[in-house]
Amino acid sequence: METELTRRLAIQYPILQAPMAGGPSTPELVAAVSNAGGLGSIGAGYLSPEQIRQTIREVKQRTDRPFGVNLFVPKQPTTSADAIARMNHYLDKYRIEAGIATNPPIPKYAESFEEQAQAVMGENVSVFSFTFGIPSQDIMEAMKLHGINVIGTATTVEEAIKLESAGVDAIVAQGSEAGGHRGSFLPSKTDALIGTMALVPQIADHVSIPIIASGGIMDGRGLVASLVLGASAVQMGTAFLASHESGAHTVYKGRILTSSEDATEVTSAYSGKAARGILTDYITDMRTYQGEIPDYPIQHAMTREIRQAASKANNPELMSLWAGQGLRLAKERGAAEIVEQTMEQARLLMRNMGRQ
Amino acid sequence: METELTRRLAIQYPILQAPMAGGPSTPELVAAVSNAGGLGSIGAGYLSPEQIRQTIREVKQRTDRPFGVNLFVPKQPTTSADAIARMNHYLDKYRIEAGIATNPPIPKYAESFEEQAQAVMGENVSVFSFTFGIPSQDIMEAMKLHGINVIGTATTVEEAIKLESAGVDAIVAQGSEAGGHRGSFLPSKTDALIGTMALVPQIADHVSIPIIASGGIMDGRGLVASLVLGASAVQMGTAFLASHESGAHTVYKGRILTSSEDATEVTSAYSGKAARGILTDYITDMRTYQGEIPDYPIQHAMTREIRQAASKANNPELMSLWAGQGLRLAKERGAAEIVEQTMEQARLLMRNMGRQ
Repeated sequence: METELTRRLAIQYPILQAPMAGGPSTPELVAAVSNAGGLGSIGAGYLSPEQIRQTIREVKQRTDRPFGVNLFVPKQPTTSADAIARMNHYLDKYRIEAGIATNPPIPKYAESFEEQAQAVMGENVSVFSFTFGIPSQDIMEAMKLHGINVIGTATTVEEAIKLESAGVDAIVAQGSEAGGHRGSFLPSKTDALIGTMALVPQIADHVSIPIIASGGIMDGRGLVASLVLGASAVQMGTAFLASHESGAHTVYKGRILTSSEDATEVTSAYSGKAARGILTDYITDMRTYQGEIPDYPIQHAMTREIRQAASKANNPELMSLWAGQGLRLAKERGAAEIVEQTMEQARLLMRNMGRQ
Repeated sequence: METELTRRLAIQYPILQAPMAGGPSTPELVAAVSNAGGLGSIGAGYLSPEQIRQTIREVKQRTDRPFGVNLFVPKQPTTSADAIARMNHYLDKYRIEAGIATNPPIPKYAESFEEQAQAVMGENVSVFSFTFGIPSQDIMEAMKLHGINVIGTATTVEEAIKLESAGVDAIVAQGSEAGGHRGSFLPSKTDALIGTMALVPQIADHVSIPIIASGGIMDGRGLVASLVLGASAVQMGTAFLASHESGAHTVYKGRILTSSEDATEVTSAYSGKAARGILTDYITDMRTYQGEIPDYPIQHAMTREIRQAASKANNPELMSLWAGQGLRLAKERGAAEIVEQTMEQARLLMRNMGRQ
């Protein structure tokens, strides 16, 4: 199934695996998706430059097909020291629950984006994608000089227009159904949680580069519907989360496979940035926090040890269980099977459409 | 374009006009949609039995095609007298702004659902649809004895399953993109704002009766995408709001035609029930209200005079401007044109699909 984007990225099928930072997108998953004809992607936002180089090499040992690397565009946090200290103190209740030391110093909170980007460029990958903003013109041009396809993420039409002006090759249109972090980077009067059905055609009418639909797409129905709406490909995350190759924690996979479509909500309680995940005791409890939640990446860094300890203790209620709204459609199977079954269903639907 | 639902409802095209209570769904609009081959629908939730009979007759003077009538299933409000009094007092600031008398008595707040339903049955209409719950088994059976097709509204899979068990003939799957009131009627741990792309296939996998997709559907792309996802028809509201035949206030139509996809949010500040509308000063201001917003229909009744006065004064900031997230796709045209252009685009897309 050829589209403008499959040609540009030299992939067989219009299926991109969402770059899921923090564990799920293992080299095995990325390579399996690319080997099956889609585009695998490393969620490298939290990785050091050395870890990025290492992960890329591990993927390359498993595939010679194109794949992508995703980074988070940094934004200077503006939270006051007082608000940070107050949250750090409040988090002690969860640290006690998780059995770790209370009142730790505020941790160092992010990798250098420039060094991460240099690592990506140094390893000759096919696709560089980014979220949370737009990299500097210098980085954008350097990526192009390296022959790398650049993909940005938009949650509104205005963001898509801005990304096209900045010179990206394609745009992920992230609908409100999508799991994980919201890619929003421009101010909006509302929460900018636009459903995929509404977002894709409106972006399609305002940009001329290929669009990748994301949010709630779990099978061939979602793929064909997205192409009809004006997309050239889809990005699927939740569908791959419970795959054999996914690095998601067993308890996390279990929740993905047993939760219903209304199990998620958007919260900034884990990282300081809005993200969609399965409801946990932590999210419910943090709804009533009276202070300000520190900006990303401060909150993310402050909650890291709690999440890690909860993970070791198999306690999902303190873990971040990022997931989209298509949960009832998640199945445990191999990543290649997901790509193949999605394509098979899509081909059948398209044939049937043509007959009507 | 035949589907399971067009056959059942004896309509030509799988396009239903959303029943928009409170003015937009005039007899002219309902008849124009039905005459064009879709299914027009009267939003009768706020009408008295006599007004319902009158409106149905006005539609029948304009069309002999099938059309529908929609009612709101009542639920006993549980708000305390104190909370109601506090809100009534708080609303005085808007009454002053709107130039009407302050501190009015708490108004009588709803029509009798049984009498409304009797009015519908007495007038021999083709379709009865309902929102906010499920009518009693007595009413459901009486509707069927009258040969009326019954359609319920679901925002989750669980609600859809419950509606099917109750014996409805079809289900509107209301995605989070949809404008106006949320049809949710079962408790959910979250806000149950599931995007159309995720909601439709998940409901399709759990019920065997026809599904009508709603939320963010504005043209042929949305129609075909919905059919691909498993729907037998679509329901479009925002697309018809700015039509020539719509009874929406001129100022309201103006906002529909000039707003962007991120202009709306879900609020219960107007009616006591969650509904999606274009952001106004009233919504923004009510975000900071410290008390409890009284349940529907109390809040609706208490804000009615304010909304009516704002409407007379052409002041949109105190009006309820219900709208979905497809706003950039709204155009000023006739209702028949909307049906025809949607069908034309849909046919073209389906032909192209079949060729790939």
